[in-house]
Amino acid sequence: MLKLEPTKQNIFEAHKLVKRHVHHTPMMSSKSINALLGCKIFFKCENFQKVGAFKFRGAVNAIFSLNKTEVARGVATHSSGNHAAALSLAAKMRNIPAYIVMPRTAPQNKKAAVEGYGGKIFYCEPTLQAREEMLNDIVEKTGAVFVHPYDNYSIIAGQATVAKEIYEELGALDYIIAPVGGGGLLSGTCLSTRFFSPITEVIGAEPKGADDAFRSLRDAMIHPSVNPQTVCDGLLTQLCDKTFSIISKNVSEIFTAEEGSIILAMRMIWERMKIIVEPSAAVALAVILENKDKFAGKSVGIILTGGNVDLGNLPWIEK
Amino acid sequence: MLKLEPTKQNIFEAHKLVKRHVHHTPMMSSKSINALLGCKIFFKCENFQKVGAFKFRGAVNAIFSLNKTEVARGVATHSSGNHAAALSLAAKMRNIPAYIVMPRTAPQNKKAAVEGYGGKIFYCEPTLQAREEMLNDIVEKTGAVFVHPYDNYSIIAGQATVAKEIYEELGALDYIIAPVGGGGLLSGTCLSTRFFSPITEVIGAEPKGADDAFRSLRDAMIHPSVNPQTVCDGLLTQLCDKTFSIISKNVSEIFTAEEGSIILAMRMIWERMKIIVEPSAAVALAVILENKDKFAGKSVGIILTGGNVDLGNLPWIEK
Repeated sequence: MLKLEPTKQNIFEAHKLVKRHVHHTPMMSSKSINALLGCKIFFKCENFQKVGAFKFRGAVNAIFSLNKTEVARGVATHSSGNHAAALSLAAKMRNIPAYIVMPRTAPQNKKAAVEGYGGKIFYCEPTLQAREEMLNDIVEKTGAVFVHPYDNYSIIAGQATVAKEIYEELGALDYIIAPVGGGGLLSGTCLSTRFFSPITEVIGAEPKGADDAFRSLRDAMIHPSVNPQTVCDGLLTQLCDKTFSIISKNVSEIFTAEEGSIILAMRMIWERMKIIVEPSAAVALAVILENKDKFAGKSVGIILTGGNVDLGNLPWIEK
Repeated sequence: MLKLEPTKQNIFEAHKLVKRHVHHTPMMSSKSINALLGCKIFFKCENFQKVGAFKFRGAVNAIFSLNKTEVARGVATHSSGNHAAALSLAAKMRNIPAYIVMPRTAPQNKKAAVEGYGGKIFYCEPTLQAREEMLNDIVEKTGAVFVHPYDNYSIIAGQATVAKEIYEELGALDYIIAPVGGGGLLSGTCLSTRFFSPITEVIGAEPKGADDAFRSLRDAMIHPSVNPQTVCDGLLTQLCDKTFSIISKNVSEIFTAEEGSIILAMRMIWERMKIIVEPSAAVALAVILENKDKFAGKSVGIILTGGNVDLGNLPWIEK
């Protein structure tokens, strides 16, 4: 795996490798959303990606760029979300085991997804300490390679292929907006933009109830994500040194969005575009909803990060 | 508008006209659904069509094939569903008025859709008699041309372009399945199959709780749709002479599906394909769910008829 911040050449190589295994997802746009917001939005539909999320790109790049010796004992990670599913499927495609540490309390549908893709789940208590202890234990016993969801340059290079495909298809845009949780996707987006469309401004989109990246950039130090309150279950994590460094050097701005705007944006995408996106994917559109003037008349690329939603529990339906 | 059953030439012409105004919708497929059902399914995504339903094709063909004299006074119809929205938008695109008779009791979102596309709504009491009286009255007063949702050969020729595009993209399939309500889409599918892929068997899919077409074909006479009980709000209507004649001469079989299977199929499409389809669109997949043996190993085209759903009221969420 990459030991240094990905170069342009690294991202070329990542894309060459990744595109053999992932879907080249379509770009979509909606006349009615454009008319409503007064700008031209191009949605990159990673909700149609394998495992239903862009995370599969990073996982594929990490696993398929390990050499035979490194990969022999399998891979391991701690995650209850899309990264766990992505790593499980990518490992299955390379015929190696994936060990997934997951809190006992993870929702049933996420456990089922990981198992469905062949991941071996190890349940721990729902604390950071328990999770890390169990992961270390597994890595020690099995010799598996730990693949962190974003604190990993090969993962970041894999996520960078999303923006690369956008620029290949559309050329330079005025803005590109990516949600930010741990910052793997936003870092990759920053790098691809610097290398392939330096004229485009990169914007990070974050729920106001989980605005640790916003505060970290503002204060030039990583703030932890403490007790985040948001419907965006994919954006609860905090930046790491690698992602903080790349993002702070390359991003134009991070915008936060209210929960109400996120849910409105999510429903707008469902209703007008007839596609299913998860709440975390709707934050970028929510940022435009809250800042119409800034984007008026501009061309904007938005990365729809995933489509894994509990359909029995939608944020606009009261239980 | 066409006075006789559409010929191959009529459908060629309809397609030439229609494709200038409609989206060429994509075909999608899902590895996991194919693996689950043991066949190869190709979904034609008319949920991505303008106004969110295939009905726009028929409306465009009807309106744009009227000559200047015929069209001068506008068009009229009675419908509370997708045909009303489709006719309104097609009329707006030809700069003529569309008069839509709708029961007072129609859901708010459907009224809003028609108004949004510029249709002029006239509310009537929710009875067949009130609806027809008001429509006749409007036609008399305005001189508008009545465009029936399916009892109209130009509409049928427009809907036939869906199957034509499927065959152009995929060649001959073993089966093609279309839902049947009034029979406009199924009639068009029958004709395009006869002309462009006669080796393919056409199957109609109908909710068991609204099985008037099934019974009509079985008994060789049109049964009315009396008090239909189904979540498929687009399939409550009954065949007319035109559609009955075309379907009975060309269809292989009509299958009915239980409500439970329809809801399961709808949710399966949402979850696995990350796209939004309305209940009426899911009946075809429900038929495969209930008849796996028949379709095992076969290639099957399914027309996903539309994606207009009240997102606040989903059939699998209890209120």
